[in-house]
Amino acid sequence: MSELDELARRRGFFFQANEAYGGVSGFYTYGPEGAALKRNVEETWRDRFVTREGNMEIDAPTVTPEPVFEASGHLDGFDDMLVECAECGDSHRADHVVEDTTDIEDAETYPTGKVEDIIAEHDLACPSCGAPLAGQSVDEFNLMFETSIGPGSGQPGYLRPETAQGMFTEFPRLKEYARNQLPFGAAQIGAGYRNEISPRNALVRAREFTMAELEYFVDPEGEGPDLSRVEDVELPLYPAGAQEADGEEYLHLTPREALDEGVVGDEWVAYFLARSKAWFERVGVDMERFRFRQHLPGELAHYASDCWDAEGEVDGDWIELEGVASRTDYDLSKHSEHADDTFTVFKQYDEPKTVERATVDPDMSYLGPEFGGDAGAVADALEALAARDRSAFDGDEVTVEVDGDEVTVPTEKTGFSVEEVTESGRHIVPHVVEPAFGVGRAVYTVLAHNYDTDEVEGETRDVLRLPAEVSPTTVGVFPLMDKDGLGDTARDLAADLREAGLSVTYDDSGNIGRRYRRQDEVGTPYCVTVDYESLEDGTVTLRDRDTTDQVRVDADDLGDVLRSLRDGDREFAEL
Amino acid sequence: MSELDELARRRGFFFQANEAYGGVSGFYTYGPEGAALKRNVEETWRDRFVTREGNMEIDAPTVTPEPVFEASGHLDGFDDMLVECAECGDSHRADHVVEDTTDIEDAETYPTGKVEDIIAEHDLACPSCGAPLAGQSVDEFNLMFETSIGPGSGQPGYLRPETAQGMFTEFPRLKEYARNQLPFGAAQIGAGYRNEISPRNALVRAREFTMAELEYFVDPEGEGPDLSRVEDVELPLYPAGAQEADGEEYLHLTPREALDEGVVGDEWVAYFLARSKAWFERVGVDMERFRFRQHLPGELAHYASDCWDAEGEVDGDWIELEGVASRTDYDLSKHSEHADDTFTVFKQYDEPKTVERATVDPDMSYLGPEFGGDAGAVADALEALAARDRSAFDGDEVTVEVDGDEVTVPTEKTGFSVEEVTESGRHIVPHVVEPAFGVGRAVYTVLAHNYDTDEVEGETRDVLRLPAEVSPTTVGVFPLMDKDGLGDTARDLAADLREAGLSVTYDDSGNIGRRYRRQDEVGTPYCVTVDYESLEDGTVTLRDRDTTDQVRVDADDLGDVLRSLRDGDREFAEL
Repeated sequence: MSELDELARRRGFFFQANEAYGGVSGFYTYGPEGAALKRNVEETWRDRFVTREGNMEIDAPTVTPEPVFEASGHLDGFDDMLVECAECGDSHRADHVVEDTTDIEDAETYPTGKVEDIIAEHDLACPSCGAPLAGQSVDEFNLMFETSIGPGSGQPGYLRPETAQGMFTEFPRLKEYARNQLPFGAAQIGAGYRNEISPRNALVRAREFTMAELEYFVDPEGEGPDLSRVEDVELPLYPAGAQEADGEEYLHLTPREALDEGVVGDEWVAYFLARSKAWFERVGVDMERFRFRQHLPGELAHYASDCWDAEGEVDGDWIELEGVASRTDYDLSKHSEHADDTFTVFKQYDEPKTVERATVDPDMSYLGPEFGGDAGAVADALEALAARDRSAFDGDEVTVEVDGDEVTVPTEKTGFSVEEVTESGRHIVPHVVEPAFGVGRAVYTVLAHNYDTDEVEGETRDVLRLPAEVSPTTVGVFPLMDKDGLGDTARDLAADLREAGLSVTYDDSGNIGRRYRRQDEVGTPYCVTVDYESLEDGTVTLRDRDTTDQVRVDADDLGDVLRSLRDGDREFAEL
Repeated sequence: MSELDELARRRGFFFQANEAYGGVSGFYTYGPEGAALKRNVEETWRDRFVTREGNMEIDAPTVTPEPVFEASGHLDGFDDMLVECAECGDSHRADHVVEDTTDIEDAETYPTGKVEDIIAEHDLACPSCGAPLAGQSVDEFNLMFETSIGPGSGQPGYLRPETAQGMFTEFPRLKEYARNQLPFGAAQIGAGYRNEISPRNALVRAREFTMAELEYFVDPEGEGPDLSRVEDVELPLYPAGAQEADGEEYLHLTPREALDEGVVGDEWVAYFLARSKAWFERVGVDMERFRFRQHLPGELAHYASDCWDAEGEVDGDWIELEGVASRTDYDLSKHSEHADDTFTVFKQYDEPKTVERATVDPDMSYLGPEFGGDAGAVADALEALAARDRSAFDGDEVTVEVDGDEVTVPTEKTGFSVEEVTESGRHIVPHVVEPAFGVGRAVYTVLAHNYDTDEVEGETRDVLRLPAEVSPTTVGVFPLMDKDGLGDTARDLAADLREAGLSVTYDDSGNIGRRYRRQDEVGTPYCVTVDYESLEDGTVTLRDRDTTDQVRVDADDLGDVLRSLRDGDREFAEL
């Protein structure tokens, strides 16, 4: 176990769930400190991606009926490659076995047969017991947790693998809340589930995790974002080309430059990359170990026109923290096909347009006797043809296909005409730009990037240099001792600070140095000590976590001082 | 659909999930307004039951391995009675069928055979199709959603039916964070799941729901709560006795009085009833339609020594909003038996105690030849007997039972002795007092209790009189029109108010009256209008939702004014 994992467990950030029952891989519980840190991280995300962008946030169930995932493609395609060891029975991700033991880096994109061949050719062994895996079948394993809804045989349901489908399936309602105006965004922070074959690396590849996803619905022909709002942001970009050339050099470009140079193709993607970078910096991700990596052509989902992953480096590995994808009209079109509702938005023209529209009005007294039960289908085919290719009606006869057979109808029986109609607008399928964040991964990276050890008064100290805004506790309040009224004064002060909206811990056990250490380890940026001088003049000692500097502050001002420090309006050194 | 349900859907509070796919009973999505209301309700709960009580909050996974529910008893006992109609195939809760159509009120507590008999005797019919149900079997149906963790046959897992088990299974760690000091509380706000046979009544009996649970761990012999902190709270109590006498009269007692009169048996239960009442009032539950109903002896879980449900009345039905139960040492004892960890707390004595302890040191050279393979069991039985009843060793022979057989051993071979040992404390199993809230039910009741229609300027208006603290939006900001700089001024003002920590909506579409109505319907307590006067003198119109009164306020003071109104520090009439 790493020092960080050990601290995370000892101080209550996170640990494997249900360890008293042996635990199950891929499930973690956030302890008191971790749950508070996670909530604060989520709150800053809400502030940045919902409130300040004027987007909506919803809260949809995690158990989802099967037809949703038929439409989304998860039922068919949300698979990993599974190989089981004949010797020990352990299951492994076949592509990981290949990638970990050969030079091949993209086994994930290969068909299962090819992976079977590679395992045989390279004579790869089971990572658990060392037995040969050659000859074992490699199968697609669907990563959704399945359950059954209702009594008896019930109906199949799945734990959502992402929160996104909630925003897509409820789109018909959400667009009404948005008064049918594009662009608008709908977001969700909540649980996602993936029945990983072999979970690893704590919060990084868990089976149950928290996501924060924004689905931003845009008119593909509409106005883009106001890039002047992010003109100062420099994006550390690692484009596909540089990766393929095995380069490790990043471009440092503003969103505008990245678009002008063709590095990023979509304005909204560029905009959200900039907003994302600022957010990651705000919650404490080290910008020296942060980049946006473009998906390689083979990695890109077939519907995505561009995708960039925000990545943070921890212990030499790059962890995917976010994906920003341009998903085109894929999601809403799929649900439009499968569901019984309207996934389009009516786009009003600036002025009504007069357009020519070709229509048919077939002579059913002719089609009926001629085509019998197919007459209706012939009429439909004529109507579709008129809309598609009006020149087909130029001759004496029109040919259409019905159920695979060619059928010919005299043009005069089709009632073909071209009319002028006035349209006030048209129905369009919005495109989706999706910034999707893994909250647990962000929390993990923030902990890793802010965990530090230094030396204080000759002793090594563990310190979490978390930004004050996301620290589980903003201020620790200590009486020098719990006697002579010091305890009561400190307790009253703690209550006042809580009332002022601060997150406060009161601690009177052990010597002051030990209490400071305890707060340093959980990232509390400030500590206040009530001593005998406090009883006389109403001042207290305020101590800064990072520098361990101390100043005396009037207790009456403390709420304002701490709030301004937390919100970044003031620096400790200025006090 | 009720007016409230219609409003809830139209204005984005809640609606059935995945309706584009027909929906599935018991699953609801909170729209933008509902998600915000729910978050605010949760936030006040956190403030009241976690922060101000100095408790911990954790965040555990929802997918839970089977052994946890073996220990908790859910695997065996978390059942409802199911009867299927032979004619139409619909499933029903057999006890509900009985209760809805006969005078019997507690069919839930009957064995399945008895319910089968009642159905036959009363010739009860299927509620869906009217076919007779007599002769159909009534079966126990486990309400946990089951799934499978990991590939292949995997291992069984269940979606937690309550959040409580997270606090119990992680107790060995939580007590360390609490530095082994009782009492302490651990809480969780999160999803719970029950695979209801026939979900009904929207958010009231859903299959996926949000709970807020506090597990408060106490020393059964320790100090109780400081009841002076709740001495002014009057509890509307509906004790079991009054219910059995078919009375509808409630007692109105303070916690102290309720304890002194023996109405409430446990001090911590009385304390949390008081805290709960204040919380329900704070979030907007109508105290005229609120009571605490004691569980009847038949309703009480076998381990619970007392339980009271907070109930709110909606449309003539009393909805269970919370249960406050004294769960004794049941939970931790069960986990202690089943799990591989310590669920006790070491309780230090004020001073070390010298106690006599009876021990044995059996002569194995005698027991071995005499009892063969049972010798160890005989030794264990002797040790247990010595701890239990030292007088058994007074005679020449000692008799113990081993595997059902009586075995006699000469006392001199037992090595019996009584020693004086010094103990600094002892291990105790904490008792649990649990206030467990249904968040969705609270949200639903708050909406129902605050939904109102009145008449404004001759027109009927729908208005949600939500407390400002939980309203999805605190203030709507409108320009009179979006021209002459009014729009820009209003947008700047909205941004400033957001910066000041308020939840703000900006709206410039439609006439002002319509914009007011829109905010009234979602419970926004205050609206601000920027007009031509604003451009001249910097004042704006501030309008109160409930009275529709308006005052002019300096725009620079608006943040402070609105915050103090929201926090209840000032009344609108005082402005």
